[in-house]
Amino acid sequence: MHPFDDALALTADSQAPGRYLGRTSPAYANMVGPFGGVTAATLLHAVLSHPDRHGDPVALTVNYAGAVADGEFEITTVAVRTNRSTQHWTLQLAQGGAVATTATLVLAVRRDGWADTELVRPAAPGPEAVPAMPEALPLEWLHRYDMRFVHGPIPDSGPPSPARDSTTRLWVRDRPVRQLDFTSLAAMCDVFYPRAFRRLGTWMAAGTVTYTVYFHAVPADLDAVGEGWLLAQARGQRFGSGYFDQTAALWAPDGLLLATSHQLVYFKAPAAHGPG
Amino acid sequence: MHPFDDALALTADSQAPGRYLGRTSPAYANMVGPFGGVTAATLLHAVLSHPDRHGDPVALTVNYAGAVADGEFEITTVAVRTNRSTQHWTLQLAQGGAVATTATLVLAVRRDGWADTELVRPAAPGPEAVPAMPEALPLEWLHRYDMRFVHGPIPDSGPPSPARDSTTRLWVRDRPVRQLDFTSLAAMCDVFYPRAFRRLGTWMAAGTVTYTVYFHAVPADLDAVGEGWLLAQARGQRFGSGYFDQTAALWAPDGLLLATSHQLVYFKAPAAHGPG
Repeated sequence: MHPFDDALALTADSQAPGRYLGRTSPAYANMVGPFGGVTAATLLHAVLSHPDRHGDPVALTVNYAGAVADGEFEITTVAVRTNRSTQHWTLQLAQGGAVATTATLVLAVRRDGWADTELVRPAAPGPEAVPAMPEALPLEWLHRYDMRFVHGPIPDSGPPSPARDSTTRLWVRDRPVRQLDFTSLAAMCDVFYPRAFRRLGTWMAAGTVTYTVYFHAVPADLDAVGEGWLLAQARGQRFGSGYFDQTAALWAPDGLLLATSHQLVYFKAPAAHGPG
Repeated sequence: MHPFDDALALTADSQAPGRYLGRTSPAYANMVGPFGGVTAATLLHAVLSHPDRHGDPVALTVNYAGAVADGEFEITTVAVRTNRSTQHWTLQLAQGGAVATTATLVLAVRRDGWADTELVRPAAPGPEAVPAMPEALPLEWLHRYDMRFVHGPIPDSGPPSPARDSTTRLWVRDRPVRQLDFTSLAAMCDVFYPRAFRRLGTWMAAGTVTYTVYFHAVPADLDAVGEGWLLAQARGQRFGSGYFDQTAALWAPDGLLLATSHQLVYFKAPAAHGPG
């Protein structure tokens, strides 16, 4: 079994419809608890496995209310409203009765129609032409992705090397490779290290508080990518009073915009950068 | 009383803590039901009025699950988790037992620290130099805002006039003027007409399904704006399979980025633009 599928594995509670039991996977361990992208993907997976599911994902918002401890968790899913072409869900992930994560999800039955992409895929050399990341990475989940940084790599442990803008651009795919689906796309939209690291050129305490993915891809678009690379880009828009936002986009190699994503991140700049 | 405050007025249910009763305001009527920005602001207002409130808004996501009918509604607020510096809420707006809107809100106690804005305020002539909107507007809520379109005005009822990109840029403030606060900022992030109208140069069926605001402003930033103008800009990133996304930003006149916002919108292009 692929480690991503293992991390997402859930057991439906036969006594309580919509309730699922899971456990964190050491393969996706982050600084504290699991990689947030995998938590988002697990919540999405719960609904996509639900017998009442109506449509494909169009929008997912996940709020990281507290740390997820290593071990078991339970997910509660509620189909709040089902319309003809859309379905709205609310979700919670809890451990020992305490809510660690809340989420909302919109599914839709989509139809063909006028289409256009304004956010054009930036130019980038092919993934084969870009060096792989160094193997000496401090977080286990980073090893689960093949990342080829075209611009804005992860700061190393040397002296801080600040940057004037926070943009990172990279090729990314699962490692080992895996057929792209909505869950892995939801996780990959969170593959970017915190933008404040890029700006200040150093690591610091940081954590996503809320995360949103808009799915532009329909299933045929995911099938067309297969196990291939995605071009991913993220940028911060405003840093201040302990938080920054990040806007991100993931394109198929042919330029189709598969997903756009946004998040708000807590960060604590080193003392050299002023109070706080 | 200002019409915005009247629209947001709620009565706390003394029998059920966290439950609030309200009613739609004709002053903010949209095509069907109220302007979505006012619904978002009302949900935010409920939490900001709650005795357990801890901090100021940093992120709000509102999901429009079904139409809000003209008349009374009830809002349920739950403080899911309160940490030292953040508080996570879940909210629902219901009418006659049916959920019309769900939302999540993150509050935070913010602190000073390193700050920078990457999304720089675009150049624009001052609001006094830009013509006011025509008075013959078909939706009541449009009259509640003074909008001065610098780029990308609302299409008129003449022959379709398509545009190559979906950007709209305008000066906006409440009409009559009102001191900016978190609730009015949340509403103003939704002040943009649907981006598909701009691209195809004509009106069509469209509705927001999910809406997110990231608040970069702290209270002193709002006080500094006072009753002044904001420069607001929105752009679509991808249109396809019946949905488009929109990313937006609102700046104070001095260039401070007060809020960034994102939404996913259902739309139905006229038959001239292909199937669907």
